[in-house]
Amino acid sequence: MNDLTQTPEMLIGAMAARAKEAGAILALASDADKARGLELAAQALRDHAGDIVRANAKDMENAAANGLSPALLDRLRLDTGRIEATAAGVEQVAHLPNPLGEIIDETQRPNGMILQRVRVPLGVIGIIYESRPNVTADAAALCLRAGNAAILRGGSEAIESNRAIHAAMAEGISAAGLPVNAIQLVPTTDRAAVGAMLRASGLIDLIVPRGGKSLVARVQEEARVPVLAHLDGMNTTYVHASADPEMARALVLNAKMRRTGICGATETVLFDSGFGAGKDIVAALLDAKCAVRGDAVVQAMDGRVTPASEEDWDTEYLDAIVSAAVVSGLDDALSHIAAHSSHHTDAIIAEDPATAERFLNAVDSAIVMWNASTQFADGGEFGLGAEIGISTGRLHARGPVALEGLTTYKWIVRGTGQTRP
Amino acid sequence: MNDLTQTPEMLIGAMAARAKEAGAILALASDADKARGLELAAQALRDHAGDIVRANAKDMENAAANGLSPALLDRLRLDTGRIEATAAGVEQVAHLPNPLGEIIDETQRPNGMILQRVRVPLGVIGIIYESRPNVTADAAALCLRAGNAAILRGGSEAIESNRAIHAAMAEGISAAGLPVNAIQLVPTTDRAAVGAMLRASGLIDLIVPRGGKSLVARVQEEARVPVLAHLDGMNTTYVHASADPEMARALVLNAKMRRTGICGATETVLFDSGFGAGKDIVAALLDAKCAVRGDAVVQAMDGRVTPASEEDWDTEYLDAIVSAAVVSGLDDALSHIAAHSSHHTDAIIAEDPATAERFLNAVDSAIVMWNASTQFADGGEFGLGAEIGISTGRLHARGPVALEGLTTYKWIVRGTGQTRP
Repeated sequence: MNDLTQTPEMLIGAMAARAKEAGAILALASDADKARGLELAAQALRDHAGDIVRANAKDMENAAANGLSPALLDRLRLDTGRIEATAAGVEQVAHLPNPLGEIIDETQRPNGMILQRVRVPLGVIGIIYESRPNVTADAAALCLRAGNAAILRGGSEAIESNRAIHAAMAEGISAAGLPVNAIQLVPTTDRAAVGAMLRASGLIDLIVPRGGKSLVARVQEEARVPVLAHLDGMNTTYVHASADPEMARALVLNAKMRRTGICGATETVLFDSGFGAGKDIVAALLDAKCAVRGDAVVQAMDGRVTPASEEDWDTEYLDAIVSAAVVSGLDDALSHIAAHSSHHTDAIIAEDPATAERFLNAVDSAIVMWNASTQFADGGEFGLGAEIGISTGRLHARGPVALEGLTTYKWIVRGTGQTRP
Repeated sequence: MNDLTQTPEMLIGAMAARAKEAGAILALASDADKARGLELAAQALRDHAGDIVRANAKDMENAAANGLSPALLDRLRLDTGRIEATAAGVEQVAHLPNPLGEIIDETQRPNGMILQRVRVPLGVIGIIYESRPNVTADAAALCLRAGNAAILRGGSEAIESNRAIHAAMAEGISAAGLPVNAIQLVPTTDRAAVGAMLRASGLIDLIVPRGGKSLVARVQEEARVPVLAHLDGMNTTYVHASADPEMARALVLNAKMRRTGICGATETVLFDSGFGAGKDIVAALLDAKCAVRGDAVVQAMDGRVTPASEEDWDTEYLDAIVSAAVVSGLDDALSHIAAHSSHHTDAIIAEDPATAERFLNAVDSAIVMWNASTQFADGGEFGLGAEIGISTGRLHARGPVALEGLTTYKWIVRGTGQTRP
């Protein structure tokens, strides 16, 4: 076990070395072993549900004593139902297709050499997350299934819960003969350990922050290790003049109101000046208890609309609030989106295919949609299975990131003695 | 033009803003336009060869006055032959297949939504390079063909040559109706401009350093922008007991001696203790004027072998020097490589397929080879056309990076009014 008197750098260095070793063993394990390890881990989560709930009760007690907000307390809370859901999630990852060994492409050179690009594990992945203890299981499962070793650093308020969940996961993968160090939990709540992870260039191959803006911002500022970061979902739905009014009404309400707290929620609605039914949709939003902050034209549509300030166009509300404006045509909509979008998910509602295709081509976001709700921006909804996050960066993986995003590739060259002239 | 009295941050900020605008225009340009722009740029390089040689003469004069080494002076020197080769390289990039618009995958969801991942430009790419002025044309051509805007920062000793080459490239792409700001050259030699590029997070999407260890090290230390970095080529060729002696001799000599200064050159040779002809290969290397630094067993093979020190096993000589050791079987070779490889290119020479496949699977390097010379580690030799570099990192692109590595993808979702339940 780790000697907690050592420095955070020593601690993370030692954990990363063990992770690299475990990864090398994992690389030689079969996919069936990894899947089996996750099935046994899911079973262990169920078997130890009582221990996990008891550990969680300690965290809840401390958190309440420390005056954590009701919202955070709810995120922290575990009951048998949530533990069952977590176990089921781990099983789902066990049943996803094997992401490793895929031959991305293969070519034969004129000299006879055969080149393949083959998908392999990414390496050692550091996960830095906040109060939801289920991430300990979700993230570990995804990393392991892709052949990676995970170093998990959860929120200090969830340390007891995370330890109990980690112990169950470790029991499961060990029972499958996999190296227990493939899933390690940082044992200290010392925040300096996070800094050490972020500086562990060459020891940790990728850092995935799972949490709020302040965490992601700190990670991006301090990290020397590559980061798979998820920034705001400042998402826009543009209702074109050719949109079907009924479809537009249904899509806008779903995109904004189905769940207001997820990153795929629409935060700004743009109505084309040529679209007639904006008034009805604004009224429907207001009737659904959604505050509407509009430009002058939208304010004129309904007395309940309040004026939008400049920052409203850049605000991810994650709440029953929407900013709305009227634009004069596609180009106007594209400029608004280019100026304010966080490049996460933007949608157009239109019956005219040419306009829609121009939108899909011109909007530079991770996800662009035509006649669909931005709330579909999710790895599960995209058929990827569980996701480690949604990347708003442009390198390596963009949009929902699941198993494939946790892999890399190597070039395999098979020759028959070729020398370079 | 840039006001050189402004701060480096202002200069780079303004250049990045112009690059982003140019990129948006480029995104709507056809592939034929981009190819045509590069053909015209190649022609402009030829038309202005005289101006470029004259500009280069100024750089050569200053460089000689500043006491640049003969090697660096040779890298800096341009003549009509080198300019013709550069123009031909730009034409070659113009004739590569279009990397954009490729549908990476497509799925239909049970609810009818159709999802595609489509290849799109990466964005604004900063190239930071040293004395070779031809990089101004090579890198700009690759970035433009992939739909990206390039910000080029060459070595101060090559500033006149780079300006002349950039002017010709700009003339060519303008003549094709492409935005001239798609290829910008940092006009100042102030080193602070490099720092500003490295900190231009959110303005520059990727930094590609092209140069020696010190440049790459500075870039990796200071960069807040993602970096496509190329570290050492500490490459090993392992001669297994089952290797064909003649093939082994030819491959080892080619891998080490064809060109000793390239990153694909072999720096360490491991002979299996079961391989009989190690002595002949060591003698052949020595006869070819290659210094051999060996372990005790290799020293005993030939009196001309000198003892290898510990650091020899980690040294990229880029010279007619090789370190050599005898290992007892595949596992011993794998441990040596795991301990000393820079994960660039490692090769096995063997007739036994099972052993070779185990090597290809177990060695965690960007390129692994069986019965081929490590000197093939090159984008052109891999059939990718020109390369922007060879990545020893694990994210986004690994090994030789050409047009595909300068792209990203977006998710395009086409629905018929689907709302998320």
